[in-house]
Amino acid sequence: MDRIKPRTLSGFMELLPPAQAKMERFMETLRRCYSLYGFTPLDTPLIESAEVLLAKGGGETEKQIYRFTKGDSDLALRFDLTVPLAKYVALNYASLSFPFRRYQIGKVYRGERAQRGRFREFYQADIDIIGDGKLDIVNEAEIPSVIYRSFTALGLTKFVIRVNNRKLLSGFYGMLGLTELSAGIMRAVDKLDKIGPEKVGAILREDLGLSPEDAEAILRFIAIRGTNAEVLAALDAYAGKNELFDTGLSELKTVAAALPAFGVPEGNFALDLTIARGLDYYTGTVYETTLTEHPEIGSVCSGGRYDNLAEYYTDKPLPGVGISIGLTRLFYVLQEQGMLSEELITAPADVLVLPMTEDKAFALRCATVLRDGGIRAQLYTEQKKFKARLAYADRLGFPFAAIIGEDEVAQGKLALKNMRSGEQRLVSPEQSVIEVLKVIAEQHGAKVIKEE
Amino acid sequence: MDRIKPRTLSGFMELLPPAQAKMERFMETLRRCYSLYGFTPLDTPLIESAEVLLAKGGGETEKQIYRFTKGDSDLALRFDLTVPLAKYVALNYASLSFPFRRYQIGKVYRGERAQRGRFREFYQADIDIIGDGKLDIVNEAEIPSVIYRSFTALGLTKFVIRVNNRKLLSGFYGMLGLTELSAGIMRAVDKLDKIGPEKVGAILREDLGLSPEDAEAILRFIAIRGTNAEVLAALDAYAGKNELFDTGLSELKTVAAALPAFGVPEGNFALDLTIARGLDYYTGTVYETTLTEHPEIGSVCSGGRYDNLAEYYTDKPLPGVGISIGLTRLFYVLQEQGMLSEELITAPADVLVLPMTEDKAFALRCATVLRDGGIRAQLYTEQKKFKARLAYADRLGFPFAAIIGEDEVAQGKLALKNMRSGEQRLVSPEQSVIEVLKVIAEQHGAKVIKEE
Repeated sequence: MDRIKPRTLSGFMELLPPAQAKMERFMETLRRCYSLYGFTPLDTPLIESAEVLLAKGGGETEKQIYRFTKGDSDLALRFDLTVPLAKYVALNYASLSFPFRRYQIGKVYRGERAQRGRFREFYQADIDIIGDGKLDIVNEAEIPSVIYRSFTALGLTKFVIRVNNRKLLSGFYGMLGLTELSAGIMRAVDKLDKIGPEKVGAILREDLGLSPEDAEAILRFIAIRGTNAEVLAALDAYAGKNELFDTGLSELKTVAAALPAFGVPEGNFALDLTIARGLDYYTGTVYETTLTEHPEIGSVCSGGRYDNLAEYYTDKPLPGVGISIGLTRLFYVLQEQGMLSEELITAPADVLVLPMTEDKAFALRCATVLRDGGIRAQLYTEQKKFKARLAYADRLGFPFAAIIGEDEVAQGKLALKNMRSGEQRLVSPEQSVIEVLKVIAEQHGAKVIKEE
Repeated sequence: MDRIKPRTLSGFMELLPPAQAKMERFMETLRRCYSLYGFTPLDTPLIESAEVLLAKGGGETEKQIYRFTKGDSDLALRFDLTVPLAKYVALNYASLSFPFRRYQIGKVYRGERAQRGRFREFYQADIDIIGDGKLDIVNEAEIPSVIYRSFTALGLTKFVIRVNNRKLLSGFYGMLGLTELSAGIMRAVDKLDKIGPEKVGAILREDLGLSPEDAEAILRFIAIRGTNAEVLAALDAYAGKNELFDTGLSELKTVAAALPAFGVPEGNFALDLTIARGLDYYTGTVYETTLTEHPEIGSVCSGGRYDNLAEYYTDKPLPGVGISIGLTRLFYVLQEQGMLSEELITAPADVLVLPMTEDKAFALRCATVLRDGGIRAQLYTEQKKFKARLAYADRLGFPFAAIIGEDEVAQGKLALKNMRSGEQRLVSPEQSVIEVLKVIAEQHGAKVIKEE
């Protein structure tokens, strides 16, 4: 037979079982944390009509899109989860209750140039809160709490949620009489981390034609640093000159003031006037999240407040606030950094049941008792030597083996071997449930990410 | 602005939040049950190289496939989860330990003619056990246990797992000297349920050219009915004449004998000699699962034993056994039949927190305490009348509302309203965790399917 060489396309993540087990835990943790805030799970098609998906049109994205025809249909694979959400909300407007909070963890597709750590198929994990016409500022204040809880549950402690407000920035540029240029200025300021203040200053003066004084004023403004209280005090000095600025400052104060009640420590939060988010889409609070010891990764969770989710589909104003985690890339980077915990059980089950007798009925019953008790139990019935069977348990990292020979069957018990300590005890099937639970609870409780 | 009419492609399921919550529970239940048997989760790309995906080639499937080019690449969307598994196992053979048990719940694509209840994008939920060269018969005996536990956990009781063995059938046809025709005979027999014995007899005689005696012998054979013991006794009468038949009978006996130890009641299991599964792929035990009161749905969980998972990719013999649930179609049918439980909480959260004061700090703290206690709590801070806020809680089906006005803030308590009973109590935030847990545990424990 002519055989085809099996391969997986480059830019498509396909994990071996132990890594996949960690990825599953990662997603499960996010689902649980998002659920705690009233986000409902959503699932939308991978394929949409190209017309619908590209309603916004243009830009870098369109070149990267997977687009094809099937019969008469012009189709495309989704390239983010925001456009499908906009479609969903516009389409189901009458059936939904607002504010509408949804999370979606799903794959999206972008035909980027293949390179290490760049993916063409990748998971995004998004949450959004959509209002009908209006949306209270408390929703914007709650987002850092979702990020904090999720990241902490994943096992991270060394991260900072950096927050700014686009109204504050626009208002400030308004004070300088630069409202028309504010989109361009924000794009320049957004590069501060990468290129430094001098080059940003050069762009402001040379590309955007700002006076040296205005450029200087902007650089001084975005250089404001300190605790939340210090930053807010420095901003107070600019108050009273521009209405938009004052609104932005008031919103920023509301967001910062809500942190203690939401349980977000000040150490994991920073008001950062350099954050603008490139997209013109955002209109209020904006978020970026960076790992303190890995600034080179850039933001791993970003988003913000917008005024019109679905303007391409409906005339209903649908303001919202949302954030997105680029899950596949984050997972890849954590793996590269050795930051995925080895504590988690990645074995396919907690107990490998090894029947050593011809009649396996008692062993099967033991497996059934374990499963009834909620323990993951795998039977191993292949005709292999005892040593080979234990090696299988060892290689896959089973926490326990349950060895069932003639003696055990005669006594109605099993020999429960703790694979880590090597300790072996003769217990009844029911006792084994409790014994196993005691030991694995701790390992199953381990967090997926481990910091140094 | 020119607006695009938002729409979802026909043949693509997109659920409203309450139905999606049930679908999530459905998948979560399957994940949990599959995990109890040592199946490890796998995730493979939606897109594969067309050459790899169509290695087997030909057939109805190829016409239905979504195939397209991107750059120089000839790509296709997966149309099942078996071909990607075969690729994965062939590709990662050296890194895997056998038997390799995996489950995968994922979307697959087939461009079928759009009609009600037919989907072009649908979930399959597959489990497979792959051996390296050999695979013990106990693995085949274990599959009904996985089906039984999964279906029971979903809430079904009225179902029958129907089991047969292809060796038994092939051996029987061998006795009649009809080995060459056995594939055709099995395809004809497979239609028995749909067209009845007379028409099957006609196909056997007229299309396949069997003698009236042989056709009659086949119809008599597949008419064997009764309890497991009765069927096996009737089959014993055929024993000793054909080696393949005897092997098949022995395997069938092993599968039936294992049921009590695996906890599968005889009422949910039937040896059924009419089951053949159309595919030539299967070589041993075959499974179909039908809902007793809905035979019109056909099999909702099918599969069997095969000898060569990955023969198109590798010369390694990789025998296996697996089953697949067509999840999207099953969910659709259950929904149509009104068989999805209304007991499940489908609200985005368990408690809607309603701050009635200007300063919302205490309300935010209450939400944080609830979340820390594992309770899903959603804040509602929109400027709406009290009645409108309660209507929101009612419409979305929140089990509880936590009303926090001046009095409550002053006392450090919240008014916890049970939305179903209407009962309202003043409790501390910590007490509210316990109160809520008590009530929702039962509802969250509800099964997703409800039978009459």
